[in-house]
Amino acid sequence: MAEKEITIIGAGNVATNLANIFKTKIGAKIHIHGRTEANVKFLAEKINASYSVKIEDIPFNSDFYLISILDDALPELVNNAQLKEQIDNNLVVHTGGSTPMDILKPLSENYGVFYPLQTFSKFKLIDFKEVPICLEASSGFNYDKLTKYAFKISENIRMVSSEQRKYVHLAAVFANNFSNNMFSVAEKILKDHQIDFKILLPLIRETIDKIQTNKPSKVQTGPAVRNDDNVMEKQAALLEGDVLLKEIYKLISKNIQDYK
Amino acid sequence: MAEKEITIIGAGNVATNLANIFKTKIGAKIHIHGRTEANVKFLAEKINASYSVKIEDIPFNSDFYLISILDDALPELVNNAQLKEQIDNNLVVHTGGSTPMDILKPLSENYGVFYPLQTFSKFKLIDFKEVPICLEASSGFNYDKLTKYAFKISENIRMVSSEQRKYVHLAAVFANNFSNNMFSVAEKILKDHQIDFKILLPLIRETIDKIQTNKPSKVQTGPAVRNDDNVMEKQAALLEGDVLLKEIYKLISKNIQDYK
Repeated sequence: MAEKEITIIGAGNVATNLANIFKTKIGAKIHIHGRTEANVKFLAEKINASYSVKIEDIPFNSDFYLISILDDALPELVNNAQLKEQIDNNLVVHTGGSTPMDILKPLSENYGVFYPLQTFSKFKLIDFKEVPICLEASSGFNYDKLTKYAFKISENIRMVSSEQRKYVHLAAVFANNFSNNMFSVAEKILKDHQIDFKILLPLIRETIDKIQTNKPSKVQTGPAVRNDDNVMEKQAALLEGDVLLKEIYKLISKNIQDYK
Repeated sequence: MAEKEITIIGAGNVATNLANIFKTKIGAKIHIHGRTEANVKFLAEKINASYSVKIEDIPFNSDFYLISILDDALPELVNNAQLKEQIDNNLVVHTGGSTPMDILKPLSENYGVFYPLQTFSKFKLIDFKEVPICLEASSGFNYDKLTKYAFKISENIRMVSSEQRKYVHLAAVFANNFSNNMFSVAEKILKDHQIDFKILLPLIRETIDKIQTNKPSKVQTGPAVRNDDNVMEKQAALLEGDVLLKEIYKLISKNIQDYK
């Protein structure tokens, strides 16, 4: 692939990880755009990219424009006439799980979605090799272009429609965000009793090990699935001081029983 | 350690894994006791142990007696006069997370707890090397005896009081049972939209990878922690048809925000 420029709009967790992997695996020239100069400059310097904070300074003729900002901020941005002028009918994509592809229509005739199914932090850059990249595009030509880029960074490329992607994102919220909150609750309970969270790591590793080859619904263990009311009552009582946690305990226990 | 007999009462997930590891790592002679002959015989034959279904057939003079049955069934068993006679004041322990050690007092003057902090299934036998073994005993002598056995199977031995153990067990329910239910919910959402659960495995592996070196509360990501109300509303709406799941979505999102 000839060296072409990619413009990334955003400097958050997803943008940072994509900018880094596009740089290292594709060797692309990167431009970072965003409204907060400190963030944009920090990312641009880290990967030796150019950057801008004014929309009129976004380069023309990027091979594609990747928008990775909060879903809430998208509706305003896609109606920005200046941005439309800069993009000049080149390919524009967003990285959001829950936003339809069509939201980008006002910006260009060529649009799509580049949704990496992973949890990203700025402080821990991801190796994308196994990360599923969910692609969608307004035409076969645009889809092929995205596929070429995606295959440079990952072996796991999927065509996922806007309708399916909503549910993939919802599933990811349960599988990652909500499971992590369960670990945080455990951390808090242990901390309140002077016990190090690390005592749980072998248990957590085994939990994940089991579902590499089995469906999670088939390997459920614990008091709820074995209807051990005695233990469930005792444990709910331990949460007496925390109304929200006690309710979460009861509802998830019920859900475990519903899934039997 | 001279070859001594260990009697295990129970043939469930925990009993099966302990019987197996005592056999392979300690080379102990094992006796399996339980009320359902099919289960007891199955386990005993697998590890070349003797077995019994009548309490009067439990051997005298085992080095210790390990009770691994449902918490609900313990109160009746500990008051069984015949069992007390068989144990004959030797060491008796249970493996429960949420039951105080003292429950065993009616059975013997020598008692304790041997609580392996792990999720167990009969179909996948665990290597105990890293499994925390939480020990408690009625005397220093009994504690030392349990420690000797525990160190033969694991490098991770902890002295944990009955009071602490309740909270360790509660934390384990969140960290394992409840996180597994979050994975099951994700599995169901994807299945309803013809998407394979395996698409989530890289995300789940990264979720766990992060907390090997960071506290989970410090690495929370997703719509709730970044107050993305737009996404949260859309996702709650996708769960419209499932009152329980929608409520779980809302409560965990709130809990994530409380932990910020």
